[in-house]
Amino acid sequence: MEEADPQYGLLGQMMAQPGQRAELVAILSEGTGEMPGNIAYLIGEDSANPDAIWIVELWDSKEAHAASLNLPSVQDAIKKGRPLIAGFGTRAEFRPVAKAGA
Amino acid sequence: MEEADPQYGLLGQMMAQPGQRAELVAILSEGTGEMPGNIAYLIGEDSANPDAIWIVELWDSKEAHAASLNLPSVQDAIKKGRPLIAGFGTRAEFRPVAKAGA
Repeated sequence: MEEADPQYGLLGQMMAQPGQRAELVAILSEGTGEMPGNIAYLIGEDSANPDAIWIVELWDSKEAHAASLNLPSVQDAIKKGRPLIAGFGTRAEFRPVAKAGA
Repeated sequence: MEEADPQYGLLGQMMAQPGQRAELVAILSEGTGEMPGNIAYLIGEDSANPDAIWIVELWDSKEAHAASLNLPSVQDAIKKGRPLIAGFGTRAEFRPVAKAGA
């Protein structure tokens, strides 16, 4: 299998409503499984803030990411997840330039 | 091959001295290839700040990450890289809870 070569990356912090982090993670995981052009969609629970999560995404291209926002599964996740979101923190776009490890 | 199951994640922004980003990326990539317990070590060029990079790391455990800081290759990279680093931005530890994509 040819090694993926992501050209577009996105990371951001999202704050859930108090006590709703696990539910938000479940909704986001469900809606983001099959997105054309997506190489990685990683969700992590912030270790310092019990309501915060971090999302790190790798994509074939910025366009693939933009297109994913129109997928029914993603639209559904956004609709379900929105009431559980209290706010957003750091957000950054990046160009993946090196990747080591498994 | 069994799917890796990272229990510890770390992400952070690092600012290079002006014009030194590519050199810093090269040094970091070189020194972080073989780190026991490391599942992913991703470096991305910040799209908004020409001197900034983002590093996203996934590890078997927090202890594995701590131990890596004593590896000769990592110590060497830190020594070589330090003069090229102008500062640090956002930093967060997280527990990976979901991962989709390739």
